[in-house]
Amino acid sequence: MARQRVVIVGAVALGPKAACRIKRLRPDFDVVMVDQDQYISYGGCGIPYYVSGDVSDLSALMSTSFHMLRTPEFFEKAKGVRVMTRTRAEAIDRRRKVLRLRRLETQTEEELSYDYLVLATGSVPNTLPVPGLDHPRVFRVSNLHDAAAIKEMLAKGAVGRAVIIGAGAIGCEMAEAVSDMWGVETCLVDIASHVLPGVLDSVPARMVSEHLQERGVAVYTEETVREVIPGSEDGSLTVRTDKRDLDADLVITAVGVRPNGRLAREAGLLVTPRGGIVVNERLQTSDPWIYAGGDCIEVMHHITGKLFHFPQGSLANRQGRIIGTNIAGGHATFEGSVGSFAVKVFDLAVAAAGLSFKAACSEGFDAVQALVIQADRAHFYPTQDLMTLALVVDRRTRRLLGIQGVSRNGDALVGRINAVVPLLARHGTVEDLSNLEVAYSPPFASAMDILNALGNTAENILDGHNVTMDPEDFERCFLQEASPEVVCLDVRGPRNAAPFVEAFGDRWLNIPQETLAERLDALPKDKRLLVMCNSGVRSYEALLQLRAAGLENAVNVQGGVAAIKKAGMLSLDKDEDT
Amino acid sequence: MARQRVVIVGAVALGPKAACRIKRLRPDFDVVMVDQDQYISYGGCGIPYYVSGDVSDLSALMSTSFHMLRTPEFFEKAKGVRVMTRTRAEAIDRRRKVLRLRRLETQTEEELSYDYLVLATGSVPNTLPVPGLDHPRVFRVSNLHDAAAIKEMLAKGAVGRAVIIGAGAIGCEMAEAVSDMWGVETCLVDIASHVLPGVLDSVPARMVSEHLQERGVAVYTEETVREVIPGSEDGSLTVRTDKRDLDADLVITAVGVRPNGRLAREAGLLVTPRGGIVVNERLQTSDPWIYAGGDCIEVMHHITGKLFHFPQGSLANRQGRIIGTNIAGGHATFEGSVGSFAVKVFDLAVAAAGLSFKAACSEGFDAVQALVIQADRAHFYPTQDLMTLALVVDRRTRRLLGIQGVSRNGDALVGRINAVVPLLARHGTVEDLSNLEVAYSPPFASAMDILNALGNTAENILDGHNVTMDPEDFERCFLQEASPEVVCLDVRGPRNAAPFVEAFGDRWLNIPQETLAERLDALPKDKRLLVMCNSGVRSYEALLQLRAAGLENAVNVQGGVAAIKKAGMLSLDKDEDT
Repeated sequence: MARQRVVIVGAVALGPKAACRIKRLRPDFDVVMVDQDQYISYGGCGIPYYVSGDVSDLSALMSTSFHMLRTPEFFEKAKGVRVMTRTRAEAIDRRRKVLRLRRLETQTEEELSYDYLVLATGSVPNTLPVPGLDHPRVFRVSNLHDAAAIKEMLAKGAVGRAVIIGAGAIGCEMAEAVSDMWGVETCLVDIASHVLPGVLDSVPARMVSEHLQERGVAVYTEETVREVIPGSEDGSLTVRTDKRDLDADLVITAVGVRPNGRLAREAGLLVTPRGGIVVNERLQTSDPWIYAGGDCIEVMHHITGKLFHFPQGSLANRQGRIIGTNIAGGHATFEGSVGSFAVKVFDLAVAAAGLSFKAACSEGFDAVQALVIQADRAHFYPTQDLMTLALVVDRRTRRLLGIQGVSRNGDALVGRINAVVPLLARHGTVEDLSNLEVAYSPPFASAMDILNALGNTAENILDGHNVTMDPEDFERCFLQEASPEVVCLDVRGPRNAAPFVEAFGDRWLNIPQETLAERLDALPKDKRLLVMCNSGVRSYEALLQLRAAGLENAVNVQGGVAAIKKAGMLSLDKDEDT
Repeated sequence: MARQRVVIVGAVALGPKAACRIKRLRPDFDVVMVDQDQYISYGGCGIPYYVSGDVSDLSALMSTSFHMLRTPEFFEKAKGVRVMTRTRAEAIDRRRKVLRLRRLETQTEEELSYDYLVLATGSVPNTLPVPGLDHPRVFRVSNLHDAAAIKEMLAKGAVGRAVIIGAGAIGCEMAEAVSDMWGVETCLVDIASHVLPGVLDSVPARMVSEHLQERGVAVYTEETVREVIPGSEDGSLTVRTDKRDLDADLVITAVGVRPNGRLAREAGLLVTPRGGIVVNERLQTSDPWIYAGGDCIEVMHHITGKLFHFPQGSLANRQGRIIGTNIAGGHATFEGSVGSFAVKVFDLAVAAAGLSFKAACSEGFDAVQALVIQADRAHFYPTQDLMTLALVVDRRTRRLLGIQGVSRNGDALVGRINAVVPLLARHGTVEDLSNLEVAYSPPFASAMDILNALGNTAENILDGHNVTMDPEDFERCFLQEASPEVVCLDVRGPRNAAPFVEAFGDRWLNIPQETLAERLDALPKDKRLLVMCNSGVRSYEALLQLRAAGLENAVNVQGGVAAIKKAGMLSLDKDEDT
């Protein structure tokens, strides 16, 4: 048999991973990577940290952990993989098993035959449908050329004001990158009702917005960009939204990406309506000699059972290895994802997996939400801090549908989310979360860890013991509508409650939970009671006491004062217990 | 029907949790907690942090997260739970459903009838079988009285030297507590061959020992305490082992605990040979009106399928809620544990779940071990640090049997271990770990996270691609025996290799991996090659190149130079890439 040749289109993340895996298992195979760029095998997710200065040198994003540059020469010498850069794959002739290539330097065409072809063509950034984006101070964050150009502008002091369009992960990271290190006055604009709209529900998202604003980033949500207008002088420009004009020296658009399935589609391979390449569990396309993975495919969502596009460097790497194993004659499968997500926004970490409440509802689930704010380690341990977690479950089946959280301690938060991923992927229930084994020691967890408490809370809601009100509903009915028929029953100690009683008068009643049994007569019988403590724990206890005493017209405000304050709904007192 | 009464014996961790859960679900029930101590519902796991001063006040260990003391009065008022302190449960009359009590203050006896009884009798500390332990400067760490007494001695400056007997979690925590904050010269002594013997295998344990010694704690393993001898003056004493005499002003024994099943056994309930109460999944004992949980029971180990004793505050809390639910008429189950574990030892965190390699072998598994040392986040991210993880798998079934790790970043480590727990509990395979979804962002994970890399490494070992040598085998055959038939092939760059070449001469050959293909002729054909890099990644690549060239007499040293140095086997160079 002639020497088998594997041709890989795309040399970032998945491509190199597949190439190296094949060569390790089958050194006799001829493996060729083709990429239209001169930069290959770089960590694109590191761009915001290069722009911010956390990563000082662009080469760090192109190096191995042992500080060798992942150049074409490196792949040839250390890995035995051939690399053709500045070479575009124009078309696939599947019948002849030939790839038509264009050398971009010489603009010549040539053919390369393959036994196996791997499509690692990545994604294409979405473009805003507005005029003015061709201005030289308008950038995307899609490759190292963008990164270098943005940093160069910042480094030479040419940027006083920046507008970031799109408040997804990359938008938030870029907002931090340009404002934190470079002192740039920064605005973040999104058409959605809150930041990180695909990932977070409103209350956690408002906690992130609040933090962005504390750190000096202006956040404009529910705002549509209409036009980018060049300024008269010195290269500055104006971003015109439906609500205001924002002057800027730098505009970055980060409004999502879509799978780059052009080559596949033109070759007659199956693609989704969104353009994502369809693959089986072995990551073969509809042509078994052609594999695809990474940002150009769509994958099964374990919760919805549907295909979705989830462009993540982590998936690309894992899929690259699977493709490598399979082409080398092994058997490996990729079964899907629950959309695990993490992002650092200044000093706050955000992480999530599965569906948000909003997404679960639109998928047709009878979704129920639990919100818990609790210390991320033993509450007596000195470095403890409050973590916020929200859980989405299905009412009828009690299945876990999604989890999301916000915390100043990123590792602790991401670890919690990761621990729930296997439960989500295997259709676990709230009881599985209540009983989830979490390694315990006071510096790292509570004896009843926040994850278990979250499961417990969801159980109590599903079982009808805990009748809850969402913080945003509290904001609307108590803070905004201020209906006289509604009274907040604050069951904390008097010191915590005092500023609220002062601010809201008769509408804010303070009866500490431990005295409630004796003071039930003091409660107004004709009002709706919104029971409140700092986190939702004592108020749950109080709610049960009220209901046992026949007072059914009461609800427990989930997350308590902590949630309301972290989400920026209300700020009164300075000295607050947790 | 008469009002149902639930009597709970033991008012720490499980007892209060069960009591409160019952009252929340069934406020009509009469719930009584009985405890022989005056201190109840305290966080015993916090004792080392109280002794160290991290927790300044003993009351913090007895308070809620909202700073209320969990006194009998608190339980009465806030929870509706009656509490009888300084009251010992003497015997159960199961026929009459009556508990016989002794009031310790008055030494009077009385009877208390029950509908449901909960045994939360906890554990009893093991005692060393040696003379002299009745000395007033010899302590255990089993309750707040011990904690207060130890701290009082430290605070008044009465302790210059301390000996801790037992290098389990509590021994290690106490070694840190007395030496770090109080500057006490501290020795840690254990009969086992390494610290944390029940949890860690030798290489990770030696990393912990190395760290303890760096922080000034002397570690004496494989050493048996024979006697504690009172000193002639000022209350000091001498701990005599089979190898030396250790002078001390304070001796702490922490040699494990055993389940306190006396009351159950005497009442004719089923207990294990070790004294642990046997319960079903609903946590009922062999008498369906009597429940038990926490440190006094044994639970199913998900990996071995056997009962084991696993005293952890986290299990006690979760089990307390389950018992509460069941007594209140619900249905909840506790299905077992994989023995998840975490401990902080100075600046190092240790965490584990499932079986160690040693335990897996003695359970009869055909166990295989993979060791990975990798950055805990993107290798280009500035705060990245090396994490060490070891995986134990079954060769035939490819089942995951256990994971253990050591890291300076405790949250990142514990999060990794927790993410693997659901896989362990559900008999996942190495492929499940390779494909485990880990939330990715450079500040929190690598694109190919260390967990996935660990799965990949184990796969490569099982599939025969990666032929490994354990660092301790390297230590024995290369460093100790120094056989001339064995050569270390260092495939790192010359700068890293130079000090080793200088130290070991012809026995340490440096050929960087990326030049290996061209220099295969330079390799000695008649020697055994131990292939080495900093972590085991490049050496794996090199191993495959050697084998493809027909050089079969080569092995990859797992964990590379990083493991060997962290475990204190060798220290030569100062400037090391990862």
